[in-house]
Amino acid sequence: MSENHSFHQIGEALRNARRIGCASHVRPDGDALGSLLGFALSMRLAGKEVVALSNDGVPWHLAFLPGADTIIKPDGQVCDVDLAVALDTATLDRLGANSIAALAKAGSLINIDHHGSNPGYGHLNYIDSQAPAVGEIVYDLLIDQGFPIDLSIRENLFAAISTDTGSFQYSSTTAHTHEIVAAMMRDGLDTARMARLLYSQNPMRRVDLLRTLLNEMEFRAEGRIASWIYPQSTKQRIGVQPGDTEGLIDNMRSIDSVVSAVIFEEQRDGNIRVSARSKDDRVNVANVCAQFGGGGHRAAAGATLPGPIATAATLYLEALEHEVRRTD
Amino acid sequence: MSENHSFHQIGEALRNARRIGCASHVRPDGDALGSLLGFALSMRLAGKEVVALSNDGVPWHLAFLPGADTIIKPDGQVCDVDLAVALDTATLDRLGANSIAALAKAGSLINIDHHGSNPGYGHLNYIDSQAPAVGEIVYDLLIDQGFPIDLSIRENLFAAISTDTGSFQYSSTTAHTHEIVAAMMRDGLDTARMARLLYSQNPMRRVDLLRTLLNEMEFRAEGRIASWIYPQSTKQRIGVQPGDTEGLIDNMRSIDSVVSAVIFEEQRDGNIRVSARSKDDRVNVANVCAQFGGGGHRAAAGATLPGPIATAATLYLEALEHEVRRTD
Repeated sequence: MSENHSFHQIGEALRNARRIGCASHVRPDGDALGSLLGFALSMRLAGKEVVALSNDGVPWHLAFLPGADTIIKPDGQVCDVDLAVALDTATLDRLGANSIAALAKAGSLINIDHHGSNPGYGHLNYIDSQAPAVGEIVYDLLIDQGFPIDLSIRENLFAAISTDTGSFQYSSTTAHTHEIVAAMMRDGLDTARMARLLYSQNPMRRVDLLRTLLNEMEFRAEGRIASWIYPQSTKQRIGVQPGDTEGLIDNMRSIDSVVSAVIFEEQRDGNIRVSARSKDDRVNVANVCAQFGGGGHRAAAGATLPGPIATAATLYLEALEHEVRRTD
Repeated sequence: MSENHSFHQIGEALRNARRIGCASHVRPDGDALGSLLGFALSMRLAGKEVVALSNDGVPWHLAFLPGADTIIKPDGQVCDVDLAVALDTATLDRLGANSIAALAKAGSLINIDHHGSNPGYGHLNYIDSQAPAVGEIVYDLLIDQGFPIDLSIRENLFAAISTDTGSFQYSSTTAHTHEIVAAMMRDGLDTARMARLLYSQNPMRRVDLLRTLLNEMEFRAEGRIASWIYPQSTKQRIGVQPGDTEGLIDNMRSIDSVVSAVIFEEQRDGNIRVSARSKDDRVNVANVCAQFGGGGHRAAAGATLPGPIATAATLYLEALEHEVRRTD
């Protein structure tokens, strides 16, 4: 990983830009869209022309984020921007092909992220693998460089921080995280309203999905591994939409015997998307996912395997069981 | 409600005491035991003889709290204490008959609470209905009066605050709440470890219970009310233990259409314990519970009705539906 550039260097590049195109990763989560919107809205207030891109659009459960209606789902056309900013995106290709195409004219790329595996693919890079959320880095950057912050920006950055810390429960959460939230609340942020919008708007589909998971999940390695096979047929029966599986894995992760939880999700193209979690510091799911070309964090990682789903599950679970048994 | 006494007055009474008996409410939750233990451990470090009482003992899911093994489940005998302290207990009788008997010899009673309905039954009272958790009041008291605070005390007070704010999601959470947590983290508190112990130790019984709830819950008032009937037969089939239902109601509360969620729990004596939640400021479940002799907060309240369970559910749901339809 290359050395980080300073907030000042990044601030200078932003101040010098006229048209900024910013984007975050495919299949966006709360940190991807919250940090993207928090950043984009601040740049707009600072007088920049801003294009905020999300390759896969905005899932229903994050459509309430202030400014979400201004996010563009790119269609392959090139945007007229002179500076590109990637947020929460470990590798360039994770921006998605259409977002990459849209940003092709930008003369320079700023890469702001918290994935330790990020190779520093920008012209300017700020990668802090200790930051629990890119939303926290964006907050620190905006404050440090004196960029505008209003309520809608605070709401987006809070959404980023709250979702990527599991509501302040993950080990990445620091005193600084709580201090930022306290400061934003003193400046008018209503965190309860945001928490309600983030966590208490489950459609019945989500309840169906959870019920199905609880009925179908399987255990191995003396109950230390919980896994669920989630094929297209289940998606079609329930009528799921993008974002419906958000947080679902925590229902397996929270079982006392479980140290690692995995969901095998069959995608439309037949590939199997693996989402893995660990709650034991000695069990590194990023390493297991790396064996299949994936990556992520120690405690939360992903990979994509070819189908059929039963074969992918068998292969992955063998590797995961090996990782879990290393701790015996 | 009588005027609050000052932290200084309470601190003086504590400093003048030699043997302190403290207790919190029956069927203790995280705030009851976390604030009780945080307080008791500090008083012990301050050189006092301390008896910490819990009328119903310590449920399995809170047995990890530092010092939980020193909590006494009173058997009707009187303790030799000169000062009694009630924590998180809205009315004296909520301490439980055996705890009340144990504290009978105390010459004075301090009442520290955050229930707005608390009548101020102590000789010294500190009731802050704005405080999200009594754990937060205890922290402020200990800091203000210079009583000792060590890591085990921070862990207990964090457990109190985290559980009573729904991991910082309820509207009672303030900037001050986050500032306290930040300060405790800077002093060495590992919140992720505590969150794991609080929220990721679900026994399979809890999974069974959740599965049953999801399969059996019912809706009325256009899906705005979700309710679940939880009879002794279900308890026996699953083999539930005290504390197993903690947080279960949030799975109904979080459904998008739902503004109020209720669980009707049949107790061994045949009475029905009602637990109700509201996520709409205009729907006050404390008022509905008050119609049946219960009480609590606007957004979280309880009552006890005579059985049979189907009759109790019908009666309560009619009153609740009336409250919900007031907002039409």
